[in-house]
Amino acid sequence: DLFLHTLKDMYYAENQIVKSLPKMIEKAHDTTLRSTLESHLSETKQQVKRLEQIFQGLGEKVQGVTCAAMDGILDEAKDVMSDIGDPNVLDAGMLSAAQAVEHYEIARYGTLIAFAKRLGRSDCVKLLEETLAEEKEADRKLTAIAESQVNKKAA
Amino acid sequence: DLFLHTLKDMYYAENQIVKSLPKMIEKAHDTTLRSTLESHLSETKQQVKRLEQIFQGLGEKVQGVTCAAMDGILDEAKDVMSDIGDPNVLDAGMLSAAQAVEHYEIARYGTLIAFAKRLGRSDCVKLLEETLAEEKEADRKLTAIAESQVNKKAA
Repeated sequence: DLFLHTLKDMYYAENQIVKSLPKMIEKAHDTTLRSTLESHLSETKQQVKRLEQIFQGLGEKVQGVTCAAMDGILDEAKDVMSDIGDPNVLDAGMLSAAQAVEHYEIARYGTLIAFAKRLGRSDCVKLLEETLAEEKEADRKLTAIAESQVNKKAA
Repeated sequence: DLFLHTLKDMYYAENQIVKSLPKMIEKAHDTTLRSTLESHLSETKQQVKRLEQIFQGLGEKVQGVTCAAMDGILDEAKDVMSDIGDPNVLDAGMLSAAQAVEHYEIARYGTLIAFAKRLGRSDCVKLLEETLAEEKEADRKLTAIAESQVNKKAA
């Protein structure tokens, strides 16, 4: 069903993020950006585990399906990292990509929570809400960095 | 530069949304969902015009560049529309896709506004903020529909 499909979509997406973040961390010039991405990498690994718990709770196989949207967002991030030489502009581009990732996840987890509530799966709702709170906090931190530092330097 | 590249990315994205919405409107079962998508189609056409004004204000050619992220989100929406038979589940899937579109746009317009502010382009900031307010309002309406109606029926 649609709930399960969206879970698989996010399982794939989170795993792709786990693969992409180390490269972004390595390229990050601003120390606050780097530490925010590092702590988000640990959180993301935890979010993968939460999705595995949800699959298990539903009696379903832990499985991902290709998420073209997340692939597209991460491909754009890769382009930014290979095309831009100036470290401050590079940081601004990675911040923009990271915020797009967070917003995509906020939208999808919001949908998953709505589905889980209607299905009466409060166990899933609890786990999904923990992740959603982390994604919103990550977006808040990225926005603060964008406003205070990197874009200013890039301009 | 990055500001201009992101503008071109959004110009492409908004034009793809203008192409995709009529199909979603045609497939929408819930009348509130349909009317929300219809009014968002008019808004999106206006947002395309605002981007054209910004290009002109910057003395740049009106031009789009392929936005892989938006292509991915819209491809997923197409899959949902072709794979799902049940009209209530179809509505829930389209709502989910539409919310992902809005969140992607909210992230990108937020970035564009930050860039424009740093560049001291208050003319661009004003136009971009008008669009951002519309995207946030569209997301609010979609979330209200998701919470009140469609997902409940789908479950």
